[in-house]
Amino acid sequence: MSRLLTVAAVQCAMLDDVDTNVAEVERLVREAAGRGAGLVVTPELFERPYWCKDQDPAYFGLARPLRGHPTVARFAALAAELAVVVPVSVYERDGQATFNTLVMIDADGTVLGRYRKSHIPDGPGYQEKYYFNPGDSGFVVWRTAAGVIGGAVCWDQWFPEVARCLVLDGAELLLYPTAIGSEPPDPTVDTSGHWQRVMCGHAGANLVPLVAANRHGREVGASCEVTFYGSSFIADQTGAIVAGAARDRTEVITATFDLDAVARQRTAWGVFRDRRPELYGRLSRP
Amino acid sequence: MSRLLTVAAVQCAMLDDVDTNVAEVERLVREAAGRGAGLVVTPELFERPYWCKDQDPAYFGLARPLRGHPTVARFAALAAELAVVVPVSVYERDGQATFNTLVMIDADGTVLGRYRKSHIPDGPGYQEKYYFNPGDSGFVVWRTAAGVIGGAVCWDQWFPEVARCLVLDGAELLLYPTAIGSEPPDPTVDTSGHWQRVMCGHAGANLVPLVAANRHGREVGASCEVTFYGSSFIADQTGAIVAGAARDRTEVITATFDLDAVARQRTAWGVFRDRRPELYGRLSRP
Repeated sequence: MSRLLTVAAVQCAMLDDVDTNVAEVERLVREAAGRGAGLVVTPELFERPYWCKDQDPAYFGLARPLRGHPTVARFAALAAELAVVVPVSVYERDGQATFNTLVMIDADGTVLGRYRKSHIPDGPGYQEKYYFNPGDSGFVVWRTAAGVIGGAVCWDQWFPEVARCLVLDGAELLLYPTAIGSEPPDPTVDTSGHWQRVMCGHAGANLVPLVAANRHGREVGASCEVTFYGSSFIADQTGAIVAGAARDRTEVITATFDLDAVARQRTAWGVFRDRRPELYGRLSRP
Repeated sequence: MSRLLTVAAVQCAMLDDVDTNVAEVERLVREAAGRGAGLVVTPELFERPYWCKDQDPAYFGLARPLRGHPTVARFAALAAELAVVVPVSVYERDGQATFNTLVMIDADGTVLGRYRKSHIPDGPGYQEKYYFNPGDSGFVVWRTAAGVIGGAVCWDQWFPEVARCLVLDGAELLLYPTAIGSEPPDPTVDTSGHWQRVMCGHAGANLVPLVAANRHGREVGASCEVTFYGSSFIADQTGAIVAGAARDRTEVITATFDLDAVARQRTAWGVFRDRRPELYGRLSRP
């Protein structure tokens, strides 16, 4: 049995104009589909520059309900046209709450559901606790035309718990839309290797391929600037990076996996046979 | 505040004679101490060739109670003489049960306690479920002269849950005595990269240094042979390998960390602030 899937990550810089950014991501999704991708991962909050560099109440006005969301609708039509699975990361308003939300769109354009980012970072350059409620959806996997997909968002990618929960719930592949770059207090710090190694660990420990799509480009806010470091990548089920983007270029990267062969390897390796859940209570103790 | 610690991993091949192996590991621990190490990690079950290649009831006779265990006693004296912390991996008998046990010896020779390997592998070349009860100690951290140390054994190293539990319980550094090499059904398979990447992920996700000490050498059993691939390594708190041994040589590797600086980085990075334990119940559900 063989079930081949080509996955892609698209990486670009975000400019001030929403229409320009959405059109650019759409162009890259089309390029990925043209290269055979059945699943295309797009960067976090790709409609705009990463406004969380600053704390400004005006930005709460950017949040939109998912119902009738123009970018979700546009990518649903695009997914159906190209027959690709596409997760779309948006700033969601739900009543008084606002979330950093991932909407999963299947290859026929169906919106399968949404995941609300669970882990919210906070610090100079990344003031997300100011803008986002902690996600209340729990972790979510989706049965898509491209397989059973586990998706989470940026800071979630630092938590082994998220990856493990998604794979325990059946995910065959993990994806992470991302916005990460320099640290404003010390622009000489480069966390890109750390960022990649942690996710490669998730891929290897859970024996699933993993896709991370980041933006690139220097963005200047009112209080600081961040240079997003690109370096989007695709790791195989042993955590080896099999496709990687540059730090500072718009790019589409792809890799092809046989999800059935990966599933056989995941089972045969034995880690999911040998877990000891009765010893893991510490992990969920508040 | 600064708290410098030099850690070492020793790597060697195991021959048929226990005294020869114990003397060789002792020699390497002395070399590590001579190079300034305050903590020296030794390979898994270093008294002997890795007998778990075969299923043979005679080998149950190798298990010994910890009380009066000659190798533990010898390394306790060695630790005190050299003022180094040394974990010792032995085959433990406790009544009718037998465990793959790690004994932690402090730098004054005190036996701080023992950890019984929780995750027991099984498969061609690695028939551990035949020889070892699943560990019943839970995960253990020790307050040593070298800092708060979390230790686990070989197959445990594939489980993100173990690393996370140890660090949640205060571990400042993780160590894994190991015996891993080729896969008898297909000697062309090389899992060493996978093995390293998963542990580098634990180091990076938990922001702790990590030491893995493996054996090297070809061992021929009755049913199969295994070539242990060495590649012992030390990773820093971002998961970068900062010292690595060859695949096929006896070696001592060392690296120095400022545990106070690492602790500051671990706190500042924010992952332990942003965990969502209420979402992790899936991990401990049987």
